[in-house]
Amino acid sequence: MDRWLPRAQGLVISGGFLTRPRFPLRELAERAPQLRWIHVIGAGVENLMPLDWIHPGLVLTNNSGVHAGKVHQFGLMALLMLNTRVPQMMTNQRKHAWAPIFTGSLAGKSLLVVGLGDMGGGVARAGKTLGMTVTGIRRSASPHPYAHKVHAAAALHKLLPKADIVALAPPLTPETHRIMGAREIALMKPGAALINIGRGPHVDQAALEKALRTGRLSGAVIDVTDPEPLPATSKLWDVPNLFIMPHCSSDDADAYMPGTLDLALKNAALLARGRALKNAVDPQRGY
Amino acid sequence: MDRWLPRAQGLVISGGFLTRPRFPLRELAERAPQLRWIHVIGAGVENLMPLDWIHPGLVLTNNSGVHAGKVHQFGLMALLMLNTRVPQMMTNQRKHAWAPIFTGSLAGKSLLVVGLGDMGGGVARAGKTLGMTVTGIRRSASPHPYAHKVHAAAALHKLLPKADIVALAPPLTPETHRIMGAREIALMKPGAALINIGRGPHVDQAALEKALRTGRLSGAVIDVTDPEPLPATSKLWDVPNLFIMPHCSSDDADAYMPGTLDLALKNAALLARGRALKNAVDPQRGY
Repeated sequence: MDRWLPRAQGLVISGGFLTRPRFPLRELAERAPQLRWIHVIGAGVENLMPLDWIHPGLVLTNNSGVHAGKVHQFGLMALLMLNTRVPQMMTNQRKHAWAPIFTGSLAGKSLLVVGLGDMGGGVARAGKTLGMTVTGIRRSASPHPYAHKVHAAAALHKLLPKADIVALAPPLTPETHRIMGAREIALMKPGAALINIGRGPHVDQAALEKALRTGRLSGAVIDVTDPEPLPATSKLWDVPNLFIMPHCSSDDADAYMPGTLDLALKNAALLARGRALKNAVDPQRGY
Repeated sequence: MDRWLPRAQGLVISGGFLTRPRFPLRELAERAPQLRWIHVIGAGVENLMPLDWIHPGLVLTNNSGVHAGKVHQFGLMALLMLNTRVPQMMTNQRKHAWAPIFTGSLAGKSLLVVGLGDMGGGVARAGKTLGMTVTGIRRSASPHPYAHKVHAAAALHKLLPKADIVALAPPLTPETHRIMGAREIALMKPGAALINIGRGPHVDQAALEKALRTGRLSGAVIDVTDPEPLPATSKLWDVPNLFIMPHCSSDDADAYMPGTLDLALKNAALLARGRALKNAVDPQRGY
């Protein structure tokens, strides 16, 4: 590291590497005086927060956009699994219980997507593809091509009781930590379902467990847990009507690294020409 | 029954009712002399076979077509679940094992659909929607709008080694009983996956279990078992990387009965006008 850091102008690197104790994250101005750009291979940068270590001459970019194709397929799958009650069928299979559940089509049902970035946008697109009515929530409340309506964050409590399926996909910030707490879960429509494709700490897992055990929610598909990896001793593994994906919903095994390199090389070219970089993270907002 | 059967010209009825010991299936010419039409609420009529009880003045029709919308959604879901390795993740969840599996997109992968009726056609459409290369097998080998190529049944052994996912949806006849036996499963591509949306006896369940336990197949989603309901003592419940749906993939809880009635009333009107009925079952072929 001491060999290349003093000469590096750009870094394409995993977020995990930057958080190693030996990496001089808070001394970059001195230890890497030529460094103007870091590209993190990943969408969330919450493990690098607070982002006060980003000095004025440095730009941080992330992999936003690279997940789009796979996220769309995950969104289709998770919405169909929840509508079909697959998590409940999984629980019945564990119990050796043959119990047909007849369900209708997703068309016309309502989807609430919290966070309309790469991940949330992919789920919104999937919902629209399947004929659902899609409502989005994001800070700016600005329109989104796959949402019929978009609201600001303050509308969450008003919108939760109306959704058949709620999908969480905001960045993890102090504002979105436990955005789905016991109170929010209690506001959901009886029999509704939850998708978490954001980060584990968005959800109060104890409240989710209770809502699934009592049947208040009909099912949940979560790609993220708190903590990760989920320890073998966690009781979350055995919660009924819950399907846990081990944080692999959105990375396309074939396309992810080529997509990452396309993006990083594009940014390297922009940097060389002194142009604004794609996917720059706002140090204040954290995404 | 003795009150209405002598006067009935048409019957709209469940297949199960016709197989009751008290129902005079083989004496219809005498006991129901005016009966010209029976509509069975269901797609398969294998429980009424052999169809030699259908006398020349009687037409049997079925519910083919009513399942189309829901089958399309099931097809999307099952293909995405197998590509994403959800059945394996379910097995890992039972074991409390956090084991990410990164997979690529379905686009460009190959789907072989055996049987291109209502069910198989819906899965073929789902595969095409997801960008897969779809090959179909049916008796007539005639073209199908959602299959890139269609072959006759004799091509099965030649086509099995090429498919990433094989979907079974033929009617259950003596020819298709155990169509996926130990030999056919052994012909499948290593790591391929299986969908059975036809009937349980299409598959040699012991051979399927072995292929899933050894990892020869990466997963299976089956909507049908042999027998049904699957008894609690069956070891099939605990086979790894297998997701069992209790025969409810294709019936739309909201649209199924209205669709059935639409079809039955249309046939009643055709019958009254002496026209050919929709969905007439060929007594020789059995579908």
